Amino acid sequence: MKRNVLIIGAGGVAHVVAHKCAQHNILLGDIHIASRTLGKCRAIIDSIKEKGSQCGPGLLKAHQIDAMDVEATKALIRATRSQIVINVGSPFLNMSVLAACIETGAAYLDTAIHEDPDKVCEAPPWYANHEWKRRDACRAAGVTAVLGVGFDPGVVNAYGRYAMDAYFDEVQSIDIIDINAGSHGRYFATNFDPEINFREFTSTVWSWEDSQWKANAMFERRQDWDLPVVGKRTAYLTGHDELHSMSKNLGVPNIRFWMGFGDHYINVFTVLKNLGLLSEKPVRTAEGLEVVPLKVVKAVLPDPASLAPTYAGKTCIGDLLKGTRHGKPHETFIYNICDHEASYEEVGSQGISYTAGVPAVAAAMLIAEGAWDVGQMVNVEELDPKPFIRLMNRIGLETRVRDADGDRVLDPYEESPAMASITS
Amino acid sequence: MKRNVLIIGAGGVAHVVAHKCAQHNILLGDIHIASRTLGKCRAIIDSIKEKGSQCGPGLLKAHQIDAMDVEATKALIRATRSQIVINVGSPFLNMSVLAACIETGAAYLDTAIHEDPDKVCEAPPWYANHEWKRRDACRAAGVTAVLGVGFDPGVVNAYGRYAMDAYFDEVQSIDIIDINAGSHGRYFATNFDPEINFREFTSTVWSWEDSQWKANAMFERRQDWDLPVVGKRTAYLTGHDELHSMSKNLGVPNIRFWMGFGDHYINVFTVLKNLGLLSEKPVRTAEGLEVVPLKVVKAVLPDPASLAPTYAGKTCIGDLLKGTRHGKPHETFIYNICDHEASYEEVGSQGISYTAGVPAVAAAMLIAEGAWDVGQMVNVEELDPKPFIRLMNRIGLETRVRDADGDRVLDPYEESPAMASITS
Repeated sequence: MKRNVLIIGAGGVAHVVAHKCAQHNILLGDIHIASRTLGKCRAIIDSIKEKGSQCGPGLLKAHQIDAMDVEATKALIRATRSQIVINVGSPFLNMSVLAACIETGAAYLDTAIHEDPDKVCEAPPWYANHEWKRRDACRAAGVTAVLGVGFDPGVVNAYGRYAMDAYFDEVQSIDIIDINAGSHGRYFATNFDPEINFREFTSTVWSWEDSQWKANAMFERRQDWDLPVVGKRTAYLTGHDELHSMSKNLGVPNIRFWMGFGDHYINVFTVLKNLGLLSEKPVRTAEGLEVVPLKVVKAVLPDPASLAPTYAGKTCIGDLLKGTRHGKPHETFIYNICDHEASYEEVGSQGISYTAGVPAVAAAMLIAEGAWDVGQMVNVEELDPKPFIRLMNRIGLETRVRDADGDRVLDPYEESPAMASITS
Repeated sequence: MKRNVLIIGAGGVAHVVAHKCAQHNILLGDIHIASRTLGKCRAIIDSIKEKGSQCGPGLLKAHQIDAMDVEATKALIRATRSQIVINVGSPFLNMSVLAACIETGAAYLDTAIHEDPDKVCEAPPWYANHEWKRRDACRAAGVTAVLGVGFDPGVVNAYGRYAMDAYFDEVQSIDIIDINAGSHGRYFATNFDPEINFREFTSTVWSWEDSQWKANAMFERRQDWDLPVVGKRTAYLTGHDELHSMSKNLGVPNIRFWMGFGDHYINVFTVLKNLGLLSEKPVRTAEGLEVVPLKVVKAVLPDPASLAPTYAGKTCIGDLLKGTRHGKPHETFIYNICDHEASYEEVGSQGISYTAGVPAVAAAMLIAEGAWDVGQMVNVEELDPKPFIRLMNRIGLETRVRDADGDRVLDPYEESPAMASITS
């Protein structure tokens, strides 16, 4: 039983995480929000109060912190008596926040892989470059660290794990497909931190094919998919966090990630990239000012949080598995549909932030009640997916399955009743 | 008889101006090049020596200067005993360099209208906002100041003046058309300082129609033109310096400026503009750095001077006049064709810089020999165009005329022999 949550970060995902934690504070205890900018933390608390999201009594408090400072982070964890830290700040912070958790014994959760500000492209598997180096330290300290527990990575890892076990003898391929069929009505915007968003697409696209890493260029491979609710959509092979752990943990020879992009997004992205404006390397202006172009692009783009009020439409994110079942070819799509307007109505965020934030809170709840408090560092596909999927069904992200038997809501315990007694 | 030239600026146009001055230093005397960055001035001198451009003996010297500093500029004019100052630095410098000329008696030449760094769009006519306020001061001091004597503005003003007088009873319209049919082979680049280039297109497009100012948006009006050598080309109504003086000085009811743009240029421009990256107003990055987006765009784009070695193709710039001659409808296109590769061969610059720089040197030569040393502030259409056109024919920019009688090189004294004796 772990109690009291410290949320690091105050962006769009942190906003959702804070609202959802507040909705479940009877289980989670005190909720603390800390970021570099105190005002942003306070704004989230104001929004929680406005929506009436807080369920039971308990602290709801804002803090200023530079989370690159391990000592300061340790001090805050101790001062707030937080036993669970949800890191939804910049991915540059992962390793320092993780260090603070290992040294204080707090459970650690994040939603994106660590990034080194100076390196856009590292060699796969990316987790091995940073996080996995602390696996032994976590085990020695008995610290639970659940890496990448947003939607993708996170839920899609659990989907892959669950569907493999429940529906297949053998899986040949997992195609993770992420389609945002929503519209924000602005000329151009990214749905989360532009700096992180663009970095995903400026480097080599790594995918796991025939049991090895294969390199492609961004927008080199495209494929059309016919998906539930959002219909026919074009998506592009993209490098993504979850491939780097799923390739190691699942034993599936082909794992790919496909992200939907409209022509307008690709055009803007291509112009900015070709001009050098997405570079993380500083340039010098004629006046002698050193500046990182990507940070200026970020400064002129809309704050992703500002898109929420006018965002309409839905997202569809899921895993398409192909393989064999009882010796015959079998195919399953396991997915979620999230509605931007419903997300805004509930917590004041658009669906991209909502789908990333809710799973992290579900994971925190499973740690709080013990089911996922495993005392070591894991990626999501290493954990039992059933309590996670069931809990998300209850707290805002419903899982559905489409296969030869039709399209239905997934209750993981109903489908595999034999397993229910183990984890529920 | 004025001698010794001080060139302010060390960009692409300054490079051409310096080469051309050196070619004609027997008339012009010592040549001094001054800019904020001494190394750029020295590089130009090295290039002149490499090409063997210098014709007679005489100084060729680099200087460091902040030309916003009027006292420093005056001191340099005096120290170098320069009687002619060719200002081809940033248009932000015009008013301070002009002040230094007025106070020292040196003749002043520039190739672009003054710009206030903080105001992208001022009310027409733009010359009245800055330069023309010093007209009385020039007259009182007997200082010759020829404003805007590049190609456009500059040569096109002389073309308008010449063609009106030589071929028409009455002119209804002058359409100035500027087509660069060359290719630099880079993803994207501007042909001169990106900061100045983009500022031309980010504000209201003013044109002179039915004897009044009319406002349009950029890329709102397009027209196809069938031109000599470069063929059929699409150009867009654009605001441009020369409209602001020609509308006042020529008595023609319609004067428009059309600039050719390819779809790729427009796409890149549109993306940058819509994102706010062409703004001259500072933004603040997440790290708290204040930075002007346009200056960052400038920093990532190729230096226009670097385009020259691979630039191929030609430019076509000219004036299409429509009106009546002997009571009948008449139409004349007076123009120049410039070849990028030939320009590079001669002076190491692409054609855009070449067409802007050569006219300024022609004007300096006409001041040196007296024909244009008028002791007051003028725009080019107020001066006799014939010696200017004839001199340019000789020094690198040949003028041609296309009308019902065919297409031919223009010798302004041959066409109007009665006038020849006055100015030659």
